[in-house]
Amino acid sequence: MEVERFDPYDGALGFSLATRVGSLVYTAGMIGFDETTGTAPDDLEAEIRLAFSNLAQVLEGVGTTFDHVLEQTNFLVGDPDVVYPVFQKVRTEIFDGRLPASTSVFVQALVSPAFHCEVKVVAAVPE
Amino acid sequence: MEVERFDPYDGALGFSLATRVGSLVYTAGMIGFDETTGTAPDDLEAEIRLAFSNLAQVLEGVGTTFDHVLEQTNFLVGDPDVVYPVFQKVRTEIFDGRLPASTSVFVQALVSPAFHCEVKVVAAVPE
Amino acid sequence: MEVERFDPYDGALGFSLATRVGSLVYTAGMIGFDETTGTAPDDLEAEIRLAFSNLAQVLEGVGTTFDHVLEQTNFLVGDPDVVYPVFQKVRTEIFDGRLPASTSVFVQALVSPAFHCEVKVVAAVPE
Repeated sequence: MEVERFDPYDGALGFSLATRVGSLVYTAGMIGFDETTGTAPDDLEAEIRLAFSNLAQVLEGVGTTFDHVLEQTNFLVGDPDVVYPVFQKVRTEIFDGRLPASTSVFVQALVSPAFHCEVKVVAAVPE
Repeated sequence: MEVERFDPYDGALGFSLATRVGSLVYTAGMIGFDETTGTAPDDLEAEIRLAFSNLAQVLEGVGTTFDHVLEQTNFLVGDPDVVYPVFQKVRTEIFDGRLPASTSVFVQALVSPAFHCEVKVVAAVPE
Repeated sequence: MEVERFDPYDGALGFSLATRVGSLVYTAGMIGFDETTGTAPDDLEAEIRLAFSNLAQVLEGVGTTFDHVLEQTNFLVGDPDVVYPVFQKVRTEIFDGRLPASTSVFVQALVSPAFHCEVKVVAAVPE
């Protein structure tokens, strides 16, 4: 089984954005990083949308899409009563009709304190 | 690779309880949710047992059992000295003689504040 | 799909250190446990190095190496500004030129309060 690595930053992050082996893809945890500002959007919903949009690009980079996501693990930061409803709203839109298995937990911190949401997925690759 | 989704709540949760692709199954994080009360049992051990019992039903729904669990990730809430011994006792009973790889960490909160234990697994499907 | 379990402690931990099914390997979360002292090294960098060295032994036990790691999930404890740079330094050395997908989050506690770093991976097995 050959491991394929998707690493557009060429090692600078210390990890690949995704790997693929056979028909399975594993992504790194994606955050709502805005390349134009170098940080998170001020708005929580915008931040979460951006995390999913960044993730969509990674999946495209390894030959798959949200249609084929098997599971997502979501690491969230903040007050669950505030953050989870917004996360749930965005996620339901994104995966409507093709819902993966999912686990969401609130952690103490992500690596970068500006962010509230990190999403990693395992996906299949369509033939 | 066709993705099969196990979603008995028909989208209402915002995720599937499990997905299957080929011979692999991914579950959502399962909690000790008691359908008769709509919340967690008062007793921690009862709550943890219920989480595993809910998980067993999901695995059955996608054609596998605890015999074929490859790994579990356990998100726990509370004092490790209190919660982990109880979790360990129940888990050892459940998986006796067929122990999966396992990772247990204490997080700040689960999505619902009434719960102390969320368990997700990856399992194989027997032929 | 036959599940193979790597459990050198013969059930005493309550989990296997790794499982293998087909060409995939799942490890338990590994910590920098020093068998000679029964705890963590005093030095954070030494602790992280030991976690990876313990992980290397587990991977060897199931027939694979760091060359074939698909993803790692890293549960860290402490101040992100202090712990992450050290973790990143060690990890980059370990996986240089073969970077897996990776997710790192800071949690409230690991099972054992002496430790700051728990790493679990999914790996492929070379043919």
